[in-house]
Amino acid sequence: MEWKNFDLLDSYKKLENITSVEVKKAMTGENGAKRVKEYQVPMGGGQLYNYAAEPVDETVLAVLQELADEAELTEKYEALYNGAVINTGENRMVLHQLTRGQLGKDVTADGENKREFYVSQQEKAAEFAKKVHAGEIVNEAGEKFTTAVQIGIGGSDLGPRALYLSLENWAKVNNTLKMEAKFISNVDPDDGSGVLASVDLAHAMFVLVSKSGTTLETLTNESFVKEALVKAGLNPAKHMVAVTSATSPLAGNPDYLDSFYMDDYIGGRYSSTSPVGGVILSLTFGPDVYARILNGAAEEDVLAKNKDIKQNPAMLDALIGVYGRNFLGYGTTAVLPYSQALIRFPAHLQQLDMESNGKSVNRFGESVSYKTGPVIFGEPGTNGQHSFYQLLHQGTDIIPLQFVGFKHNQMENDIVIQDSTSQQKLNANVAAQIMAFACGKEDENRNKYFAGGRPSSIIVGEQLTPEALGAILAHFENKVMFQGFVWNLNSFDQEGVQLGKVLAKKVLAKETDGALTAYSELLGIF
Amino acid sequence: MEWKNFDLLDSYKKLENITSVEVKKAMTGENGAKRVKEYQVPMGGGQLYNYAAEPVDETVLAVLQELADEAELTEKYEALYNGAVINTGENRMVLHQLTRGQLGKDVTADGENKREFYVSQQEKAAEFAKKVHAGEIVNEAGEKFTTAVQIGIGGSDLGPRALYLSLENWAKVNNTLKMEAKFISNVDPDDGSGVLASVDLAHAMFVLVSKSGTTLETLTNESFVKEALVKAGLNPAKHMVAVTSATSPLAGNPDYLDSFYMDDYIGGRYSSTSPVGGVILSLTFGPDVYARILNGAAEEDVLAKNKDIKQNPAMLDALIGVYGRNFLGYGTTAVLPYSQALIRFPAHLQQLDMESNGKSVNRFGESVSYKTGPVIFGEPGTNGQHSFYQLLHQGTDIIPLQFVGFKHNQMENDIVIQDSTSQQKLNANVAAQIMAFACGKEDENRNKYFAGGRPSSIIVGEQLTPEALGAILAHFENKVMFQGFVWNLNSFDQEGVQLGKVLAKKVLAKETDGALTAYSELLGIF
Repeated sequence: MEWKNFDLLDSYKKLENITSVEVKKAMTGENGAKRVKEYQVPMGGGQLYNYAAEPVDETVLAVLQELADEAELTEKYEALYNGAVINTGENRMVLHQLTRGQLGKDVTADGENKREFYVSQQEKAAEFAKKVHAGEIVNEAGEKFTTAVQIGIGGSDLGPRALYLSLENWAKVNNTLKMEAKFISNVDPDDGSGVLASVDLAHAMFVLVSKSGTTLETLTNESFVKEALVKAGLNPAKHMVAVTSATSPLAGNPDYLDSFYMDDYIGGRYSSTSPVGGVILSLTFGPDVYARILNGAAEEDVLAKNKDIKQNPAMLDALIGVYGRNFLGYGTTAVLPYSQALIRFPAHLQQLDMESNGKSVNRFGESVSYKTGPVIFGEPGTNGQHSFYQLLHQGTDIIPLQFVGFKHNQMENDIVIQDSTSQQKLNANVAAQIMAFACGKEDENRNKYFAGGRPSSIIVGEQLTPEALGAILAHFENKVMFQGFVWNLNSFDQEGVQLGKVLAKKVLAKETDGALTAYSELLGIF
Repeated sequence: MEWKNFDLLDSYKKLENITSVEVKKAMTGENGAKRVKEYQVPMGGGQLYNYAAEPVDETVLAVLQELADEAELTEKYEALYNGAVINTGENRMVLHQLTRGQLGKDVTADGENKREFYVSQQEKAAEFAKKVHAGEIVNEAGEKFTTAVQIGIGGSDLGPRALYLSLENWAKVNNTLKMEAKFISNVDPDDGSGVLASVDLAHAMFVLVSKSGTTLETLTNESFVKEALVKAGLNPAKHMVAVTSATSPLAGNPDYLDSFYMDDYIGGRYSSTSPVGGVILSLTFGPDVYARILNGAAEEDVLAKNKDIKQNPAMLDALIGVYGRNFLGYGTTAVLPYSQALIRFPAHLQQLDMESNGKSVNRFGESVSYKTGPVIFGEPGTNGQHSFYQLLHQGTDIIPLQFVGFKHNQMENDIVIQDSTSQQKLNANVAAQIMAFACGKEDENRNKYFAGGRPSSIIVGEQLTPEALGAILAHFENKVMFQGFVWNLNSFDQEGVQLGKVLAKKVLAKETDGALTAYSELLGIF
């Protein structure tokens, strides 16, 4: 297996010289209909990844397959899940897929079988949640806990929060919403104050999440919460659990009801299927629903082993993204879920993608001379249509689009207005938008003219269930991983976040000079 | 006054040939400190716009001043607020600034003085809110309303929602939170169901907002809500008011408790200071707080009249943005408020900016050959630091940054940990980030190397008060307006949203062919 820079590959040269596909032409007429029916790949959770409106045809796809083979994408994935040290910068294995399935060989580290370790932590969280739900673990007054509040930031916040919001309403109608969840992340004291003001403290269970046990924001918010508990005459040790690594200062601390462990082989942004997501989601939805999320993710992870790009949705999505980024000049990708439940999923993908592949050096620390990770942003449709879609349709840059849609909504209510349900209206808009972006519209009035040629893909499922959600989560994790392989990056470290931390400490220690002193004065810190 | 394409201006040529400023060099040492102290402009609400870390110096600023003069930016603004037909595509005046002050001559339209009309609507909303608060307008059981639920999408949702969230906690600690607000926007039926499930219907007042009275999503959600009210044994006509134009089908309809008016001279994304924002904000915070928001905006509008760019923060911000977009190749701007209360402000700015200036034709409908509006995205700090900042620091593209920060937080609670408050930690991070982006860090390990040279500005205030918020709102409205003037765009129409609507209707009427039929089948509509 070889780790080579992207621009040294033969397939890179081929992609440079390939004739590009005109999306508008390809999607017009019966050929377009044929593409919609044929250009799709089964995904986990019974979903499909449809790429009909992407700028690819059989010729481009053949070269993308060559790229997949030449860059040894599935071999690298296999090495990863079998325990190779893929995170070279931090000298660590990358094992988040093991939290949801045994994909290859047993992986041993820290003197234990890691799959067994992750299963044991999942089970521990399940047992704990069951005791809370059964009223075996209760507050000082012997009453049940009703709310779970996660204290964490970055990967300890965005993924779990996005997953919770994705299934909150689904859980309500399926009678499996055991507890409500809230989240405190920002060091801004108003974040903690605002959340605490909306919580019944006496019946709140706090889930403190920090792998290192040293994250400044999270420890500060922990103290903030503990102070509020004490003020309310409550005992913090009866209201808080820790999710951390076994070697952190938080581990096994008697100040917590219990501790749940992840390890250094799971990066924050890949940790939603570890206890970082598992504890809060088991508490709120019950362990069975959480297990269903893991099953959906595992299904997707298995698909990612396929060498054939037409049977590997994450790899195909990754390769089409790379083609757009490096050969068609697209710098930004919009994520557009047509499901209000996915409201914070784009924010999770922002971290997942931009923190993983927003890098300028390869895995050996050498500068690369090609573009890497794009900017990711998005909001649910149809809201986005009434907001930034103007630029997507008629702006001077082309922004590739990732749609997500479901045949059925999550809750039981719907209404027929003008002969269609709201769900039909919602989906009519997805279909319409894809075609409007792809084919545009001629008009002599240039202000009403749509050039088209704006590519998109769509993930389509029956309903946003736990399995579907898990599969979507893993799809994007695996997409980002494959893109990192193509770009020859280490997608699993984040050295770019360090400098800001160092300088912030200097400010707080008043060890500054020059403009940093001036800004500190401006902001009223000094 | 002349409307000319940007690239035909003499100052365009000058900017093409100007020596660019190295941010890293400029911000290093005592020169950096000097820039922080000098490169700032007073804003409304007692705030400052500081542009020390932008790629400008006296030479660049002089050419930007020439550009402002040559493009007649303040003259065009003056024409706008004096009632010229600036929205050429729709043949309309652009009067949102008049909702918060009389900036120039009286403007007459539809047989009335528009400033007086806007004031009368503000007063009407104030009187209505006072009656609701006083228990003079009550539900069927004679009880007070406790929650206000806005039904609207796009500009009828994003701006008012962002403003509400910005002041919700502030209002709590200042004892002026009269009612809680909720928002229903998406045609996804789960949005309405989810919100209604969290609302005490018997004590909820719905504010239906649609200028045209024909917005499909909003009318659908209105029916959805009315059905829920009827099912709960409540009379919809006792629970709903309309905000619309005087000529819409919703106006003066006896199905509503009352109607409040805006008009065609206020675009959706500029309507937060009209009754679109005014009714819900007067209900939730009280008319006095709403008036304070307007005062902050008005203060900023007055500053925007200054011909000297060093005394006109919105115009300067606009020009620096144009310089980065057209001459330094920056395609995206990140908005990074270090205040959790501003969590949805970036989403509002996304619409404001991308829908206004995401265009490829000038105000005469001719294609332009330069880049126009950038992609806008953002999340509050410090959350973003643990998410996408990796790419901002070390990615292959440079993304200019707009920070916002406040010396004091909104709520009373804070906590000292390791000798500093949370607010100090928050602001230490802003200061640190600006300098990390600007100056970077040398390191032999290229993985830990930061190139720097990543520009930013910051708006700094004492506290996020109603006045400060109003000023920030107007700052960005005016920035977008000035950029539109430079790019010779009509920033006040949105033809790019029409095609999708037309095609969605075709899908619902089953009048499709080709790929649109195939997508409709895929999504389960047919």
